[in-house]
Amino acid sequence: MKHIPRTLGGLACAGALGLALGGCGKQAGEQAGNEVAADAAQASYVAPGEKDDYYLFYSGGHSGQVYVAGIPSMRHISTIPVFAPYPGTGYGFDEESKAMLGDFTWGDVHHPALSQTGSKYDGRWLFVNDNANNRVARVDLRDFKTKQILGPIPNASGSHASSFVTENTEYLFVSTRFSTPLPKGRVADLEKYADEFNGMVTAVEVDPESGEMKVGFQILMPPFDFDLASTGKGPSSGYVFFTSYNTEMAHDTLEVNASQADRDLGAIINWKAAAQAVRDGKATEMEGVPVLDPAKVPGIVHLIGIAKSPHGMDVDPSGKWVVAGGKLQPTTTVINVEKLLGAIEGEDYEGDFRGIPIVSHDSVVEGEVPVGLGPLHTQYDGRGNAYTSLFIDSAVAKWKLPPWTDEEKADLSKVVVDKITVHYSIGHLVVAGSDTNAPYGKWLVAMNKLSKGRHISVGPSQPESSQLIDISGEKMKMVAEAYTEPEPHFAQILKVDEIKPIEVYPKAENTNPNAVWDLADGKVEREGNHVTAKIVAVRSRFGPDKVEARVGDTVTLHVTNIEQTPDMIHGFGINDHNINIVVDPGETKSVEFVAQKPGIYPFYCTNFCSALHQEMQGYLVIREAGETQAPVQ
Amino acid sequence: MKHIPRTLGGLACAGALGLALGGCGKQAGEQAGNEVAADAAQASYVAPGEKDDYYLFYSGGHSGQVYVAGIPSMRHISTIPVFAPYPGTGYGFDEESKAMLGDFTWGDVHHPALSQTGSKYDGRWLFVNDNANNRVARVDLRDFKTKQILGPIPNASGSHASSFVTENTEYLFVSTRFSTPLPKGRVADLEKYADEFNGMVTAVEVDPESGEMKVGFQILMPPFDFDLASTGKGPSSGYVFFTSYNTEMAHDTLEVNASQADRDLGAIINWKAAAQAVRDGKATEMEGVPVLDPAKVPGIVHLIGIAKSPHGMDVDPSGKWVVAGGKLQPTTTVINVEKLLGAIEGEDYEGDFRGIPIVSHDSVVEGEVPVGLGPLHTQYDGRGNAYTSLFIDSAVAKWKLPPWTDEEKADLSKVVVDKITVHYSIGHLVVAGSDTNAPYGKWLVAMNKLSKGRHISVGPSQPESSQLIDISGEKMKMVAEAYTEPEPHFAQILKVDEIKPIEVYPKAENTNPNAVWDLADGKVEREGNHVTAKIVAVRSRFGPDKVEARVGDTVTLHVTNIEQTPDMIHGFGINDHNINIVVDPGETKSVEFVAQKPGIYPFYCTNFCSALHQEMQGYLVIREAGETQAPVQ
Repeated sequence: MKHIPRTLGGLACAGALGLALGGCGKQAGEQAGNEVAADAAQASYVAPGEKDDYYLFYSGGHSGQVYVAGIPSMRHISTIPVFAPYPGTGYGFDEESKAMLGDFTWGDVHHPALSQTGSKYDGRWLFVNDNANNRVARVDLRDFKTKQILGPIPNASGSHASSFVTENTEYLFVSTRFSTPLPKGRVADLEKYADEFNGMVTAVEVDPESGEMKVGFQILMPPFDFDLASTGKGPSSGYVFFTSYNTEMAHDTLEVNASQADRDLGAIINWKAAAQAVRDGKATEMEGVPVLDPAKVPGIVHLIGIAKSPHGMDVDPSGKWVVAGGKLQPTTTVINVEKLLGAIEGEDYEGDFRGIPIVSHDSVVEGEVPVGLGPLHTQYDGRGNAYTSLFIDSAVAKWKLPPWTDEEKADLSKVVVDKITVHYSIGHLVVAGSDTNAPYGKWLVAMNKLSKGRHISVGPSQPESSQLIDISGEKMKMVAEAYTEPEPHFAQILKVDEIKPIEVYPKAENTNPNAVWDLADGKVEREGNHVTAKIVAVRSRFGPDKVEARVGDTVTLHVTNIEQTPDMIHGFGINDHNINIVVDPGETKSVEFVAQKPGIYPFYCTNFCSALHQEMQGYLVIREAGETQAPVQ
Repeated sequence: MKHIPRTLGGLACAGALGLALGGCGKQAGEQAGNEVAADAAQASYVAPGEKDDYYLFYSGGHSGQVYVAGIPSMRHISTIPVFAPYPGTGYGFDEESKAMLGDFTWGDVHHPALSQTGSKYDGRWLFVNDNANNRVARVDLRDFKTKQILGPIPNASGSHASSFVTENTEYLFVSTRFSTPLPKGRVADLEKYADEFNGMVTAVEVDPESGEMKVGFQILMPPFDFDLASTGKGPSSGYVFFTSYNTEMAHDTLEVNASQADRDLGAIINWKAAAQAVRDGKATEMEGVPVLDPAKVPGIVHLIGIAKSPHGMDVDPSGKWVVAGGKLQPTTTVINVEKLLGAIEGEDYEGDFRGIPIVSHDSVVEGEVPVGLGPLHTQYDGRGNAYTSLFIDSAVAKWKLPPWTDEEKADLSKVVVDKITVHYSIGHLVVAGSDTNAPYGKWLVAMNKLSKGRHISVGPSQPESSQLIDISGEKMKMVAEAYTEPEPHFAQILKVDEIKPIEVYPKAENTNPNAVWDLADGKVEREGNHVTAKIVAVRSRFGPDKVEARVGDTVTLHVTNIEQTPDMIHGFGINDHNINIVVDPGETKSVEFVAQKPGIYPFYCTNFCSALHQEMQGYLVIREAGETQAPVQ
């Protein structure tokens, strides 16, 4: 069956915002549509046996996970479980991951960030935030697994503007979308919001060797809702830029009350100066964290008026320009970093907010570009172009960064060089490598908030839609559409050949004291009412394949997958027990439970392994507590 | 970047099993490869704005879920959470779905089955099993949501051979992969496995109006491991056919001990006769279920010797042929239903197993077709062809069903008309509509067990690979490859235009007594230490947006999404509380918790809804238990 893209003959061509691909319109007819479809089909097709060129790591929003897709095929490749249990890999079922998740079984992942060295991706880690429970997590790109969850972060509510890494991953910046009275747990009347509530920016320190995260320091902020951030590079090195909304400091019916002011205030943080101030003893401790008050420590925070209700605040690859998108204003605000630093140096202020200076807007803003309705977030291709998502227009605008000609300056609509319709209500967008100093540039992914039945119907719970756009030419070209789990907020794109993940855990690296590597060493031992089994999993058996316990016993099972062959994964599920762990080649995983009910419970390999996978099973025998003769194998 | 399929120029052409697509080989060179790739690219491409033609519902194995993909694009569309919580839709977080999941947070989904009327899909329900915890679930195709989980089913361990629906969805058949002493909870020595352990076939009755499932009756079975099943139609109407392995009745090291016999025994169950026997009072009760003993109730179960260690046992669309694939034998066994019924009628037996007659193999087997190594599972296109997955060969064989010519009968290798290589280690395969009496026929999906690095590397936890094959012509054509969550065991394919799911819950249907439909009706009430809030969610606010409670209070929140616009989904997450529910348009959902710690906890809409989505928030205020003056709004 041939799929002629109706959008080309109809919707997109009829729209006001330009063409998805060249050559449509009624005259062009079906023939041109066919050619265009064939081109796009070819551009996104990755034939069986071939591989994608780029990883797309996209946030799974309130699903709590990170998803990996391939570009250009946009195929879903795998799920990296982070903040929610995922029985497919046993995450949240074995003791180690259970402990990492703690009391939480979900998270709200917004903004993934690849680690950087010298403002380039170094392929080591992916950091993601949990807005719901004030946490950040680190995924190791050596094995694509979550290795640490930090939090809940003290003194913070809603780690939304996170994770954003500094140019050498010295810090992750995390700021609060919500404000509360501090210290947390203190109750104040909501009517006193403006005076009693505070936001917080947290600098999470990252160990340069291990990636281990810890809370470094915090900066007390006014009770604005901090939204997004971007870190400096080149001339803006050492700075991090945040947007905020609700500078009205409303505490109810925010829909109306947080949209009153004509401008909101962005925050410009000199994190190197802040770190120095902490070292200089200028912080006070709150809940064990050194906290800086910017009204008392001048020079670490400046504010700037930006377009109303902004979302993105994005530093370009050169580090010379910072673009803020104000969703309730049809322009992006382009800040000139050189002028900004000059204004800070010269104390060129237009006022202050509770002792935090507000930089003179007109002195530092290079221009406001009329990109279209609802500009949210801007990305860059490294060739001097910016791409801004237009939420209300459901489009992406491509426009030229400064320097602008005098003619352009006189009419900034002239720097907008292309627009493409997306479907629908785009939030974030990502250009491959945009947040480095050397973007890959070729691809843009539009992360649309509403799919509105673009897909085959799956009932009221609609997926989101993401669209792949080729930005290698003068005009943007729509290539493919994919559907994504709820809900992608932001993404990172990494060239496939920049990392080389392992596929097997080398035996030599397994230092787990409970690992056993030979069927002869598998055993079940009892000490008092604690039964411990050390079990080998290997194609296609468990050794031992019988574990005996008595009701009331604590049973600990350590399962070692002694395979050293890629993709030879074994699972270990116990019937009727809500227990399933999945053990990758070379790994040891443990699960502990109290034997509750007498009976014979088969256990089996839950992850297909061989022709005799179905035969890979054994029995958990639980005898009555009184049966003292229970033999132990 | 052009992706030239290397498999065509290299691997597939070099392989022994035929070509993935025509026209390759060294002479054909890159040009032919390009054309082939262009054809396949076009065949699987669904342009932005166009929709797929078929739903692919595939089992998510130990991930516990069902996934929906589109054919021909093979794009992942959405997740239907069934046996595991899924915060993306709030499943397992609201009170109703929490109650449905009970104590379990995972399942092992193997075989989805669409409901049928007259041996055709009727588009009403999708049933799936949980092998791990002996359950079955019903997904409603009106809204793609799980509506019922039945189980754990009494007297059963491992509901593997499930779900398989009868021709009018009178019953779902479910049989045990594991055997235990019965009643469950009784402990017997494993050494007495053959005598003390039993398997069970369960007939789950389905209400023809509501789809409500209940355990109808059970049939006591020998302690074999029942694997897969298929229900009769046409001449085989009223029967269900099961394979089993471990007819050796081994209880340890099954890898070796369950592969001794040259043949295993399939089970042929006359379910209409069994249902009648139950009505006739021939069952005895066990754990509240009427259980038939086939040794005592003749005519309900017959056994038949089939190829060694079989997996599939698949009735063809005409109902005349049943094909068993024995994974340790390079042939499929083709049973002639007419002869089988004659043999049963004429008591043409070759023995019995503990009183259950074994039908004479040679009298009923039409032939054994040498399809290749490791035949597992067979599907049909309705044009007289069968497609068998070859696990060891990593291939699919296409072969002609009977009637065969004399020449073919003399050498059944002649009925094998095509083979195509798949990657790698195919388990199940699915042909669109194969289990109905009128297959759609066009597409086949190979569900491969090992992907072995076919995809961009995601570390040791590799996804599975599924491949789309065009079977509309004489030769099978490889079209596309997709990666699937662990792990697809079987799937169902449904034509998109055969169902019309709703996208909004009509207000008139919402009978929840706690629903409120007007901001003016939203309220928070206290009765003793129970705080109940009825909250309206609508773009872009919660009403009320403040809920006050005291430590120790039970707090119940009922959130009604009063939108009647498709895709206008709202979430409701509470900071620091591990609470997130997602409410579709027109739905009311509830969550209950005990207020634990004083403080002010922002709540917010977790599912994007509008330009002012970020402003859709409020506060949960928890005061100290002693603060008796806590105002209630």
